[in-house]
Amino acid sequence: MKKIATALILAGCAGVVFAQQGPKPEDLIKWRQSGYGFMAWSVVRIKSNVEGQYNKDEVVQAANAIQAIANSGMGKLYAPGTDKGKGWEETRVKPELFADKEAVGKVAMAFNKEANEMAKVAAEGDAAAVKVQIGKLTETCKGCHDKFKRKD
Amino acid sequence: MKKIATALILAGCAGVVFAQQGPKPEDLIKWRQSGYGFMAWSVVRIKSNVEGQYNKDEVVQAANAIQAIANSGMGKLYAPGTDKGKGWEETRVKPELFADKEAVGKVAMAFNKEANEMAKVAAEGDAAAVKVQIGKLTETCKGCHDKFKRKD
Repeated sequence: MKKIATALILAGCAGVVFAQQGPKPEDLIKWRQSGYGFMAWSVVRIKSNVEGQYNKDEVVQAANAIQAIANSGMGKLYAPGTDKGKGWEETRVKPELFADKEAVGKVAMAFNKEANEMAKVAAEGDAAAVKVQIGKLTETCKGCHDKFKRKD
Repeated sequence: MKKIATALILAGCAGVVFAQQGPKPEDLIKWRQSGYGFMAWSVVRIKSNVEGQYNKDEVVQAANAIQAIANSGMGKLYAPGTDKGKGWEETRVKPELFADKEAVGKVAMAFNKEANEMAKVAAEGDAAAVKVQIGKLTETCKGCHDKFKRKD
């Protein structure tokens, strides 16, 4: 009887039990897609500034967002069980990302380095230097996508 | 004949023409949903640190991401034409957000203030203070959701 009561209480507290177990894989996938989505906006903004009228404040805002997201430890969003499944949409991560940690570390370090440099260059406010740096940064995005993201 | 040729060339360059016109409303909606999605992860991380084992570095990463996104000028993602439509999902923004600029300014300023304070408190590393501050911050999230986000 006590066991049944306990089971009922646990069922009623599913939310709490869940919270103790940590987020679901679909949440992790959604959150990483969110991070890339917000960085996509930030890249678009920086590019549109260097190609059109340059607004230092806007470039700094965008570069700071990229830097903070890049340094937020997104690797945790690739926990076991997140190799397949739907966040905002079906994940396009390739199995290689979970198998080749050394290669992942390399692309992640390259991206972080250029993201940190992007924030520094943005703060200096030289549009020509920002144009060069956004090119270097997006090369590291592409480097990771080519290796670890399906094109479908 | 020249007109037809020009029309064909323009049709072929639709991507370029689009790029000059700026992002589509559905992109703006997707990007703002991404910003909130990434901040949701960051809030979950901070809460799980103050309720469980405390890791200063993780809290700083999460708080810095919230701060940078909060200060990125997300107001631009609420351009005309983004009151309805689908980004990652159908927007749940209420019409009031586009009508009552004074009220929007108030909730946005309250949120930014607490997000900046959150980053400061996280850097100091006092778990009890972080617990108080994440409470203040999420109150400002709720304040905006209550006014400007549909519950469906």
